[in-house]
Amino acid sequence: MAKRTAKRAEYELYYWPSIQGRGEFIRLAFEAAEVPFVDVARGSGRGAGIQALFAVLEGKRGELLPFAPPVLRHRGLTIAQTANILAYLGPRLGLVPRDEASRLAAHQHQLTIADLVVEAHDVHHPIGVDLYYEDQLPESGRRSEQFIRSRMPKYLGYFERILDGNRHGAIAYAVGDALSYADLSLFQVMAGLTYAFPNAMARLAPQIPLLHALSMRVASHDRIAAYLQSPRRIPFNEKGIFRHYPELDR
Amino acid sequence: MAKRTAKRAEYELYYWPSIQGRGEFIRLAFEAAEVPFVDVARGSGRGAGIQALFAVLEGKRGELLPFAPPVLRHRGLTIAQTANILAYLGPRLGLVPRDEASRLAAHQHQLTIADLVVEAHDVHHPIGVDLYYEDQLPESGRRSEQFIRSRMPKYLGYFERILDGNRHGAIAYAVGDALSYADLSLFQVMAGLTYAFPNAMARLAPQIPLLHALSMRVASHDRIAAYLQSPRRIPFNEKGIFRHYPELDR
Repeated sequence: MAKRTAKRAEYELYYWPSIQGRGEFIRLAFEAAEVPFVDVARGSGRGAGIQALFAVLEGKRGELLPFAPPVLRHRGLTIAQTANILAYLGPRLGLVPRDEASRLAAHQHQLTIADLVVEAHDVHHPIGVDLYYEDQLPESGRRSEQFIRSRMPKYLGYFERILDGNRHGAIAYAVGDALSYADLSLFQVMAGLTYAFPNAMARLAPQIPLLHALSMRVASHDRIAAYLQSPRRIPFNEKGIFRHYPELDR
Repeated sequence: MAKRTAKRAEYELYYWPSIQGRGEFIRLAFEAAEVPFVDVARGSGRGAGIQALFAVLEGKRGELLPFAPPVLRHRGLTIAQTANILAYLGPRLGLVPRDEASRLAAHQHQLTIADLVVEAHDVHHPIGVDLYYEDQLPESGRRSEQFIRSRMPKYLGYFERILDGNRHGAIAYAVGDALSYADLSLFQVMAGLTYAFPNAMARLAPQIPLLHALSMRVASHDRIAAYLQSPRRIPFNEKGIFRHYPELDR
């Protein structure tokens, strides 16, 4: 089991301590690989907590300034952008095949997932991230209709086709013939969309059986299952990317 | 000068033939490096034109299915997602430093630019890409206010700080001490935002002198200057990402 507070962990993740958000894609990778990391903003003491997160975001250490979290620090490198971090971690955590074509494919999928994540977020923030949800209700209503009718089926249908094209017997992976970070990220997106839009996802279920099978497989993976049951897994909530507002899921 | 129709070009780019869009970040890299590529959908004859683009998008060749263009084909690989393509091309075109830290940084910047590009696009499509701009006018008006007041200054101010932290004498680069694809992409974003929001960009100019100097330097780079004056450079228009609607630039 990954120890977030292990003193000797080489990897430091800087992300908001109270949401899954984009940081969760990285937490899942560490957990699946059973590689220790420090979830810095969730710790306490010197060099930890939310102050340590802000110090990194403000570039106070003289490292490469990130635009936003998540940020990974490892061996003197400071790396931002979720997909960039996963491309860096994938080979180190054994979560991507060795060949160049598969690594490009995994990264491509992660970037398409990132596009979907932006759209899932913007359902509740179609006008601006600096406004509250309550300040953009009518627009959110319109955007959610588009998202549920058109965009969510398009993205998930696309990944269903990707899985269909990469079956190994009864099992389909995003890339190669073993679990990769792209599979973990697809699980996370499926979990998030199911939390946010349970009605829409139920209607869509018959069209995406391979995505559901993949999600179930990831959820029952030994180390991921243990993680999901642990206090390390932050529950979905209405501060994160995937928010359940019933009025947006009709 | 890059020859788009060179018979022996190793690289094939598949992108919409009538807009700059996301494909332009890749066209600029080829042009700056003076490496021939085939801009397939802009060609004619067998295996060219818009039909060839659709064939790739529909996965008819049995290659990795892309979610959307641009798509690069090179030596049997099919690669999608703009930033993924540039990460692949950067070392091959000599447009990124050799060390890992710089490559991670260039990719990180490209991904942050991609985030800005999504937001610049969504100013005129805040409700959905499947609706016309005319069907989301009030929402576009609200979103443009947020974009101009908050988001555009935040992104450009961020890149100004990045440049400020990487000066080499009087010249600042995004990464390292020479032109990289990240610099080309910053130029493209500055050109696009200036086309779309001339008033807002004029007001912002005093705060981003290094970005302006970088953009001027890229625009006067021998091969880029020749490209910009050639018919290969598609003019900005109201079908692309950066659109000039005066009502959104007040």
